[in-house]
Formats: sequence, structure tokens, C-alpha cells
Amino acid sequence: MNVCIQKEVSSPAPTLERLQAIVAPDLKRVDNVLMQHIESSAPLISTLASHIIASGGKRLRPALTLITSRLCGYTGERHIQLAACVEFIHTATLLHDDVVDESKLRRGESTANDLWGNKASVLVGDLLLSRAFQLMVSDGSLHILKILSDTSAIIAEGEVMQLAAEGDLHTGKETYLAIISAKTAALFAAACEMGAVVSGQLHLAASLREFGHCLGIAFQLVDDALDYTADSSILGKTVGDDFREGKITLPVIGAVAHATPEEKLFWKRTMEEHTQQADDLERAIAILKKYKTLETTLELAKDYCTRAHALLDSFAASPEKTALTETVDFCLARAY
Amino acid sequence: MNVCIQKEVSSPAPTLERLQAIVAPDLKRVDNVLMQHIESSAPLISTLASHIIASGGKRLRPALTLITSRLCGYTGERHIQLAACVEFIHTATLLHDDVVDESKLRRGESTANDLWGNKASVLVGDLLLSRAFQLMVSDGSLHILKILSDTSAIIAEGEVMQLAAEGDLHTGKETYLAIISAKTAALFAAACEMGAVVSGQLHLAASLREFGHCLGIAFQLVDDALDYTADSSILGKTVGDDFREGKITLPVIGAVAHATPEEKLFWKRTMEEHTQQADDLERAIAILKKYKTLETTLELAKDYCTRAHALLDSFAASPEKTALTETVDFCLARAY
Repeated sequence: MNVCIQKEVSSPAPTLERLQAIVAPDLKRVDNVLMQHIESSAPLISTLASHIIASGGKRLRPALTLITSRLCGYTGERHIQLAACVEFIHTATLLHDDVVDESKLRRGESTANDLWGNKASVLVGDLLLSRAFQLMVSDGSLHILKILSDTSAIIAEGEVMQLAAEGDLHTGKETYLAIISAKTAALFAAACEMGAVVSGQLHLAASLREFGHCLGIAFQLVDDALDYTADSSILGKTVGDDFREGKITLPVIGAVAHATPEEKLFWKRTMEEHTQQADDLERAIAILKKYKTLETTLELAKDYCTRAHALLDSFAASPEKTALTETVDFCLARAY
Repeated sequence: MNVCIQKEVSSPAPTLERLQAIVAPDLKRVDNVLMQHIESSAPLISTLASHIIASGGKRLRPALTLITSRLCGYTGERHIQLAACVEFIHTATLLHDDVVDESKLRRGESTANDLWGNKASVLVGDLLLSRAFQLMVSDGSLHILKILSDTSAIIAEGEVMQLAAEGDLHTGKETYLAIISAKTAALFAAACEMGAVVSGQLHLAASLREFGHCLGIAFQLVDDALDYTADSSILGKTVGDDFREGKITLPVIGAVAHATPEEKLFWKRTMEEHTQQADDLERAIAILKKYKTLETTLELAKDYCTRAHALLDSFAASPEKTALTETVDFCLARAY
């Protein structure tokens, strides 16, 4: 760990335990739906899709659909299938992101792309996205279909915006926030909004959507800070991925804004011209430390978490509300 | 042209002229819908998507939705948007196919992939597919949504099956037909079925679907024969693409079935082990000629065209019916 960020809380680190305990039985059923819909006559599909579904991750996005449904008093069955849609969309994005980003580690394991190649990742990603739409159609709500087809388009647009901004040192904070809002926060927002919609509590849809948006932005901000600081065994991704790919994230944007002429040349060479040497990552981290841009990135994440908390104020106390509160705290605490 | 296939008809070669004349005004409106929905704040998206949409091709699939709608007496507006969905799905497939197949020519121009790289092709393909679903949702018919989401899943599954069969000389005719049925004929079938559905003529849906299926199979069979025979300036693709990629198509399946031990080694080296030399394509063509497998492939295409014609029997004479008949003849005639 190269950067030491001061711990600000002395209470026990927040966890996802309460969230996980509440949604565990539902999440098991979501997993069954996922597995059932990736069974295929083509063994390559089952193998590859099972690999990425089974490697699992935190299942945070489908868990948000499950917990917000319960928060809104939902007692039916549809949230299971809709949570599966959310996870399929997320997994398809991961598969396609692996293709394009040449990440070396994802969720702590080899990427599907490493194991089976670009072709399979693209095509199985397409299949999972199509499966998501089939599930939505069988659910039968045009409202839900609108939310998730819009989200799917926004995610793709965000990924393209990110690609276009790669290596572009003129990328500003506003563009960066637009990118992470689209590529990450949109699915968090949709996952939470669906809890209100499936419950028929449409008056809660906007605030749950905004809650998901704030949580998603905070989540990505923390991720982008961790990319320069994390212990890879904890985060499950290679430190310095963003740097190596020339991905312009907020810590870099802040450092570029204050850069000396010499530092400007450094960023230009490493990020714009993609000419990197062995100790460049270390130097990049030193510059980010000098301008405290990891701290300012996390400060902004904290602001979004504060807004997320406030959006829960209008909900009566319940285990689900507490679980959501702790989820917000957990997202931020990953950085410390 | 290395293989000379006997011309069997002396009448003028069939064309798409009647089809094109009938659908021209509608197709122009489809193009407007396409262009309108790829406008984006990210210039990369507009540029890349416009490139592939503008390079255009024959627009055969959306034209099928337009002409079958008119065949069924449809007088509304929805078919324009639905034809645009069909073209978006097709274009997304092309973009993702470019990524995986490393085709050098597509529609006679450089592929988007050549010009902008894998990343952009994957992500813009995702965006176009999402746009297709947004258009379907705004159309508002769950029946149409079911047809096209199923189709989209079938196409992806077909592409994966094809990938899994690459270089596999045990691939039989049945597997090959299952692959082209999924990756190609499914969208033709859906495009035609939608004409009946949008018109509310549900009793015609099954036969128009089957018509599209037969036309699509014939279309792909002819394409797969042309891959070993065509003049690249006519077909707009490099001759020998399938051979170089180790794609096992019907002409090869037939030749492998009859292969001498020496020929078996040839196919094993070139298709399975992907070790190819300069004159291997020529030798492959010579073997296909020896066993007349291009002819048998085209014979099968002809059978499917006969079935397609028969499926139009129950429709009363109309310019639209004649246009569809000529479309079938045109697909087959491309080979001669």
C-alpha cells in the first residue's frame, strides 16, 4: 500500500452483513434463475457464463433490487427475476469491459477473456444481455422494460464516452462525473428504482433512484481512488489498471490541474502517449499524494454518501433501511 | 472466379428492384429513425455508428419488415420504427462479428473495427442493441418485444455455436444448419413475422415467419458457397474468409465427408490447426470442385427457395407478393 489515508472512525468497520443476511434467501433464488437461463445446448456458453456468474462478486446490484423491494413492502415474486436481469446486464458489461480493457484481474480471478478469448467474451456478453431482455419481457411490465432498456443504452454510451476520453488530459471533472454516472451509477439507480416500481410504490421511485445514483457515484469514486492505493488481494484487481490504460479518473484530473510543467510532460507521456516505464506508477502515486487528490476524490465520495443517507430519511425505521444505510457506509469504508 | 457454376436460367437475372421501389419511401423514413437514434453527445458514437449505418448494404432485413407489413395490408406507422429495430440488431451483430472474425472487408469497405478498433466496435454494438430495445419499448407491444428479444438471444447463441464449431471437422450438416438457422435465418424470420403481427393478421404470422426462415437459410447457404467462388468486387467481402477463419461451412462438410486420407490431413492442417500456406485456398477450392459440394450447397439453397415460394401461395396476387417472390429468386441468383 503506497498511500496511507487517515482512518477517521474508530467504530468497527461497516460491513454488508445485514444486507446479505436479509437478502440471502432471495439471492439464492436469483442465482437459480441466473443458472437456469444460461444453460445452453452450446457447452461453451454454459461454461463461460457459469464461470463469470459463479465467480460471483458481491452481487451488490441485484441485492439492491431485492432490499429496496422489501423496503417498499413488496411481498410478491417478481423481484427475483428482475434482480436476475440486473445481474445479467452487469455481467454482460463486465464481459465486454474485459474485452476492451485488457484487465488482468477481475473479482480476484482470471477474466473470462484471459481464459477463452475476445470472441467468446463478446458473444456470451451479447447472450446474457439478450437473456436479461427475455426475462424482462416475461415479467411483462413496460415500465420496467423502459427503465432497463434506457439504462442499458446509458451504460453503453458511458463506456463509449470513457473510451473517447482515454488518454485525453483535457477531460474535466464534469465529463468524468458524466462518464461514471452513465457507466456505473445508472445501473445502481435502476436497481433501486425497480424496488419501488415492482411494489407499486411509484411515489418512492424518484428518491430510491436518486439514492442508487448517489451510491453508485460514491462506489465508483472509491474504486477509482483504490486503483492507486489498494492491496490487490483485497480489491481483487491489479493496482494501477486505470493508469496503465490511460483512463482519466478524478485523482488524475486533480493532479493535472495543478501540474508543474515537468509533471505535465509526465502525464502527457504516460497517459496520452501510453509510453510507460517501470517506476511510472510509483511516480504517479507520489504526484497524487503531493496534491492530495486521492483525499479530495474520497471527500467527494463522502458527499455523495451523505446525500444517499439523506434520501433514506423519509423511510420509517426498518431492518431494510438500516441495511441500506450500512451499505452506503460500507462503500465508503472500502477506501480506509 | 475459380469455380464456374452452370447458369440454369436464360431469363434476365432476378433483381431486388421491385422490392426496393415499393419500400423506398418507407426505407427513407427508416434511415431517418436510424440516424436520429445514433446521434449522441459522444462524437465517437455518431461517427462510428453513422459509418456503419451509412455504408448501408442492401437493408434487406428492414425491407422485409416493410414489405410484409404492406403485404398484410398494414396502413399505420409502426412498421417504420420496427424495421429500424431490425436494422439496429443486424448492425450490432455485424459490429460484434467484425471484432471476432477479423474480417478484412465488409460491405465492400473497411470494417469499423479496422478503423476504430475492437473497443469501439464492441461498445457501439452494445449501444445499437440497446437502442433497438428502446425503440421496441416505445412501440409498446410485448408481442413484438418477445419476438425480437428471443431473436436477439438466438442470434447470440448461434454465434457462440459457430465459434465453438470453428476448426472442428466433426461438425455435421445438422449442426451447421442449426448454426445458420440461429445466426442468420432467425432475424429474417422475425423481420417477416413482424409484418403480420404489426398488421394484427396473427393467422399469417407463422407462414411469414417460416418464409423468412427459408429465405434466410437460402441466403446463408449461397453466401457460404460464394465465400469460395465470388468476385470480391461483387460480393463485397474477401474470398476465402471462411477458410482462413476455419469456419466449417456446408461445402467443406461435404468435402470432409468424402475426403481421401491425404485430403483429411489437408483439412486438419488448414482448418483445425490453422496452419495455412499461400496456395491452400486454391487447393481447398479444387477439392470442393472435385466433390461438387458447392453445387450441392446451392441445390439445398434452391430447396429452401422452393419452400419459401410455396409459403407465399396462400397470399393473393399483389405487387408485394411479386416483390417477395423476386427477392427469393434474387438471393439464389447471386450464386450464378
